[in-house]
Amino acid sequence: MTLDTVSTNFSHGGFQGVYKHASTATGTEMTFSVFVPSHAQGAKLPVIWYLSGLTCTHANVTDKGEYRAACAELGLIFVAPDTSPREPDLNGEAVPDDAEGAYDFGLGAGFYVNATQPPFAQHFHMRDYIESELPALIAANFPADMARQGIMGHSMGGHGALTIALRNPGRYKSTSAFAPVVSPLNCPWGEKALGGYLGPDRAAWTEYDACALIEGGAHLPDLLVDQGTADAFLEGQLKTHLLEAACAKAGQPATIRMQSGYDHSYYFISTFMADHLRWHAARLG
Amino acid sequence: MTLDTVSTNFSHGGFQGVYKHASTATGTEMTFSVFVPSHAQGAKLPVIWYLSGLTCTHANVTDKGEYRAACAELGLIFVAPDTSPREPDLNGEAVPDDAEGAYDFGLGAGFYVNATQPPFAQHFHMRDYIESELPALIAANFPADMARQGIMGHSMGGHGALTIALRNPGRYKSTSAFAPVVSPLNCPWGEKALGGYLGPDRAAWTEYDACALIEGGAHLPDLLVDQGTADAFLEGQLKTHLLEAACAKAGQPATIRMQSGYDHSYYFISTFMADHLRWHAARLG
Repeated sequence: MTLDTVSTNFSHGGFQGVYKHASTATGTEMTFSVFVPSHAQGAKLPVIWYLSGLTCTHANVTDKGEYRAACAELGLIFVAPDTSPREPDLNGEAVPDDAEGAYDFGLGAGFYVNATQPPFAQHFHMRDYIESELPALIAANFPADMARQGIMGHSMGGHGALTIALRNPGRYKSTSAFAPVVSPLNCPWGEKALGGYLGPDRAAWTEYDACALIEGGAHLPDLLVDQGTADAFLEGQLKTHLLEAACAKAGQPATIRMQSGYDHSYYFISTFMADHLRWHAARLG
Repeated sequence: MTLDTVSTNFSHGGFQGVYKHASTATGTEMTFSVFVPSHAQGAKLPVIWYLSGLTCTHANVTDKGEYRAACAELGLIFVAPDTSPREPDLNGEAVPDDAEGAYDFGLGAGFYVNATQPPFAQHFHMRDYIESELPALIAANFPADMARQGIMGHSMGGHGALTIALRNPGRYKSTSAFAPVVSPLNCPWGEKALGGYLGPDRAAWTEYDACALIEGGAHLPDLLVDQGTADAFLEGQLKTHLLEAACAKAGQPATIRMQSGYDHSYYFISTFMADHLRWHAARLG
């Protein structure tokens, strides 16, 4: 597993790096960013996974997320992966995209699933990439304490963070989300993506639906969600109330905060980023 | 003076806006951003001017500057103008650019001067734009206390902040810079820009040279400069030591900090942004 350094910049007393590697999960080159704060030689630091939303690469949160000051203060490593394969595969072939190039399927829209439907089944294995391949790469190449991991994400990445944490009990000590897609079974983004990647049998979708997982008995010690009330996707796609109902029904502890006046953008995320990181740090020791 | 709103986003409890207007100083449409934090109705807030470096628009610092949290905490309005005219002029004609499209002259490189040389003399009046036109627009359209202004900038914009403050004693209560061009008379960027905009008579350049202004008797109560030691432009263009020498010679109080390991990027600027804003706030009351 060779890791190529694209760039490193000293920032907030630590190093913000961007790296690429040939991924076995996706069969393509993949790019991600890692911030490592200043730390004592030999120390191992907790790791925060940040999963991005539709259209994003690692760069959006790296540029606009305003996480470095808090990660430096709290001693947290911050990892930001891409949201799908997007480079040509290792044979030089383009990976498939939405037939009409739409933003909500294909490139930039991996939805953190392992696709089973052609032509996506060959490369769109973002679940394996985030759950297995990238953690091994992080453990091998950075001063990461893999016993202390937290996971967070935005929108499609909030869906990713919630479902990955719910399916892997105990692995992540802390889970949070900004404006997550809480139930792909019940929104147009989810229906298009899960239908396209997994096929029409909706029973196969439930392991990728946070509400269905919680109602089915998956459980986390706690979770934190911030959702802006001025988010244009709240009513049609995000449907925070479904998560509130699922948590209430299943006895899942959750702090779900409706934030007045905030939209779906990084102007919203950056406002609450430090607060989320403090919440994670308190649970990561 | 009509102001068109391009976008507003709620962030850190305040509003981040982007605006455009037809500028009389440049004869073009100009775009700038303003962050207004939460404040009591009717209150007037201190204003921080942030002047950007070569190639930048308002968007670079707006995306990557990490200033909103500190401005919200300190109650500061933050204004980020563009660095040159770049839209077609009000007759629909393109504004002139560097003959070879270089990054360091013409579009994105106004150097905060009033150009006297054709073809730049017609539109490249960034000095008038920043010193006169935009302040009037800010005063008329935002809850700004124009008796409490501070000015800061990066690289070419650090040059802008220093020279504008030095030429307008008393107007800015606080002045700071990240990695400023301290003496255009003594670096390739400056020689190209001032030569191109002002012509070969170097006597006309001195009012645009912070070191020459300080040595000529201009004086500020105080100034703050941060400069990264790993900045690739330090030796050839920025030459911080010339500012240290000019301040020492003239008795100009200055806090000039060499920051170990930092480069010329927004990873550097964002690290020290909150610190600069606190420094300004302490002087703005």
